[in-house]
Amino acid sequence: MTSPLVLSLDAMGGDHAPQAVVDGAALFFKGRKRQVRLLLHGDEAQLKPLVDAHKGLSALCEIRHTDSEVDMSAKPSEAVRRSRGSSMWNAVEAIRSGEAHVAVSAGNTGALMAISKVILRMKKGVHRPAIAASWPGPKGFTTVLDVGANVECPPAQLVEFAIMGEAFHRALHSVERPTVGLLNVGQEELKGNGVVRDADQLLRSAGLEMDYRGFVEGNDISLGTTDVVVTDGFTGNVALKTAEGTARLVAGWVREALTSSVIAKAGAALLQLGALDQLRAKMDPNSVNGGVFLGLNGIVVKSHGGTDAAGFATALRIALEMADSAFLNQIEHNLSLLAAAQEEDSETGQAALQQETA
Amino acid sequence: MTSPLVLSLDAMGGDHAPQAVVDGAALFFKGRKRQVRLLLHGDEAQLKPLVDAHKGLSALCEIRHTDSEVDMSAKPSEAVRRSRGSSMWNAVEAIRSGEAHVAVSAGNTGALMAISKVILRMKKGVHRPAIAASWPGPKGFTTVLDVGANVECPPAQLVEFAIMGEAFHRALHSVERPTVGLLNVGQEELKGNGVVRDADQLLRSAGLEMDYRGFVEGNDISLGTTDVVVTDGFTGNVALKTAEGTARLVAGWVREALTSSVIAKAGAALLQLGALDQLRAKMDPNSVNGGVFLGLNGIVVKSHGGTDAAGFATALRIALEMADSAFLNQIEHNLSLLAAAQEEDSETGQAALQQETA
Repeated sequence: MTSPLVLSLDAMGGDHAPQAVVDGAALFFKGRKRQVRLLLHGDEAQLKPLVDAHKGLSALCEIRHTDSEVDMSAKPSEAVRRSRGSSMWNAVEAIRSGEAHVAVSAGNTGALMAISKVILRMKKGVHRPAIAASWPGPKGFTTVLDVGANVECPPAQLVEFAIMGEAFHRALHSVERPTVGLLNVGQEELKGNGVVRDADQLLRSAGLEMDYRGFVEGNDISLGTTDVVVTDGFTGNVALKTAEGTARLVAGWVREALTSSVIAKAGAALLQLGALDQLRAKMDPNSVNGGVFLGLNGIVVKSHGGTDAAGFATALRIALEMADSAFLNQIEHNLSLLAAAQEEDSETGQAALQQETA
Repeated sequence: MTSPLVLSLDAMGGDHAPQAVVDGAALFFKGRKRQVRLLLHGDEAQLKPLVDAHKGLSALCEIRHTDSEVDMSAKPSEAVRRSRGSSMWNAVEAIRSGEAHVAVSAGNTGALMAISKVILRMKKGVHRPAIAASWPGPKGFTTVLDVGANVECPPAQLVEFAIMGEAFHRALHSVERPTVGLLNVGQEELKGNGVVRDADQLLRSAGLEMDYRGFVEGNDISLGTTDVVVTDGFTGNVALKTAEGTARLVAGWVREALTSSVIAKAGAALLQLGALDQLRAKMDPNSVNGGVFLGLNGIVVKSHGGTDAAGFATALRIALEMADSAFLNQIEHNLSLLAAAQEEDSETGQAALQQETA
């Protein structure tokens, strides 16, 4: 299985599926030279006319019919039990079977994670998968993880995220040696909770091959102070949703300012010719659409449920970058170093305990 | 002690003190009709010429000399032991002694919190003070707490924050019946961690006089979905710093767009005449400067350490609003309802335990 690269799509997942999925696929192929093929899992009766509406698309896509799909509100445990043969299940199964390189879905996040875990299983040495998100900054993108899969994380878990996030960032953004920071609060009175402090210690002492830079704060995500920002899924999810909300609020203010008076409108009209479109492109949430599941034996990309065709095309571009990388193999060395460090820790702990009780 | 209202200022706290403090005081008085007086705690030799530089300011301020101040990097415990008689200590002490209504400092947050706890003590029924911040939204301001004082919070603590935050929002923003939300993550697979789930239950069952609306997510802070957003100090601090960072990033993009070409410059020049200044004002971090310490027997406002005169003036405006309100008394009823609910809980728990062991 070398070339062409094959992406496996849950064509029925997401609020605007299957239309946004097929239109997104067409957008994705625009101006693309290299060979990529898509598998579209879903209802052929709906998919065929949508594909045929785009000239040349049917030659690049293969429709894999199923009339079952996962409900957007299904619970993860339910989804695993009842969704065998659904478009989402089949999209992920095609990764396991080796037919495709990366799966993409805009469906129910919890169901997709649960199904992916059951079908692909965790990579050796990984205890829990994480979801990584890309956030734009002044110099490029910051990778933030976990953004939702794991609400509570012990210190070693955060170190695993650091290992996976670092390799992911290298793969996706072609940075040779990504810098890694651990999200914390900076007030003098508190150096963070015990978990974060212990994770910091472990990151420093485990001898990982990683450019770990210590603690960063919330504003460092947008500043791009480090390439990778590591946190638990609760904090990461809140931080990214807060950032999205703020970006939208400020964008709304900009729009308001540009249309609030005749003079402003004239100014805005002139700006349209120039740089305002670039600004729009930067602020477009579609440009960062696509959380990647890390830590499984295979790569799954989760698009926002509410995404449109442009956003889905971005998710496909991310999937393609990932399909092409060997990042799954790059984490093995650091994972084994982490395991060794933990073993040593527990031996030292046991020795101390024996001494105490002696 | 009725009128005039008296604000007690740590004139030496903050990166740009005492200049920014005195200039901020002068800005604060501009166009103000009602009677307010300021106590300026700090080095008279430095303060007097700064005050005299503003016409009429010396009549509204009283300088209380001290040549001791709290270092910006001092640890809270150190600050409590060694800073008796410092400008920060004296600013807070004036609240306890009844000389002033509210204390304001741009100094070291941890030291200010520790000193405030020692001098003012916790209000009866409150277990830990919190820091509340105001964040702008499309319809007004959202109150977020805690944003840094408490990194780990049990469920009852979050309920206390809800009680204090609700009364605070009413006092500061004149909203009759503020709505309250509990910050959580929305993914299907996770209903949040145990603490957040338990706090939600307690908020529903304790019979509080409060318009509690359940869970909200990070983007709801900027949307203004609820007036008050409750969370632990770790998540709150990360969320607000992330929002600040994002606002600054987008503002940078706007600036770039407006100056990137001759045409853009022409458009921007027209916009200057119109609505761009309003936009600037909205995006100015000074407009939301001032975290308020809640839960003490007295009100302390913390300005950003790096603030300039305009930001410090905002902190003084917040202090004045708070000085004027009876919000400290408004939380007593709900606190007693919470205490009763917890007692009942622990009795039920004990009864269950007795039954089990019988």
